[in-house]
Amino acid sequence: MFRSSHDAEVVPAGFVLFEEGDTGEIMFAIADGHVELTHRGAVIEKIGPGGIVGEMALIDDSPRSATAAAATETRLVRVDREHFMYLVQEHPTFALQVMSVMAERLRKANH
Amino acid sequence: MFRSSHDAEVVPAGFVLFEEGDTGEIMFAIADGHVELTHRGAVIEKIGPGGIVGEMALIDDSPRSATAAAATETRLVRVDREHFMYLVQEHPTFALQVMSVMAERLRKANH
Repeated sequence: MFRSSHDAEVVPAGFVLFEEGDTGEIMFAIADGHVELTHRGAVIEKIGPGGIVGEMALIDDSPRSATAAAATETRLVRVDREHFMYLVQEHPTFALQVMSVMAERLRKANH
Repeated sequence: MFRSSHDAEVVPAGFVLFEEGDTGEIMFAIADGHVELTHRGAVIEKIGPGGIVGEMALIDDSPRSATAAAATETRLVRVDREHFMYLVQEHPTFALQVMSVMAERLRKANH
């Protein structure tokens, strides 16, 4: 569903994908490795292979609500707004996957 | 996008759409009036015309994470899973609207 693997890039542990408060128009799909989401310094989620991070800024144009950094060497694919809209339009299962990730995060946040 | 208005129903103030912990397979689109979402007795959101509530149970099959009740006389449209999947597949703007509502709720929950 995402572009072919030659569009993937490998980033080292510690690499910051985005910081809380940034404006951003890129979502990341994790192929290998782990990314940690932190909010005000506290880890709120670890995202592994098959996961996505950064989708909220694409959906509602708001600043990043958390900081995302690679916890290990991580292979990821960048998904820009145009590609995101294409995926939502052409691959309803992608839209459902994004909703599912968000639902899980909402349930966690409410607890 | 939703079915025609003869599928809408009017419920009185106080009518409970669903309760925290219920299993449920219906989302509600609010046409007129207001619905209050409460979690452990505290109001977490008021949803007005054009809003949706109950989408999470359709997405991930989990029990309701909050209680929803009409705060005023409310006109609403029930959207079952089959209709929801149809909307996601045929109307990408619907999927984006659902994601947008969830993103807003996530941002609120994180604050």
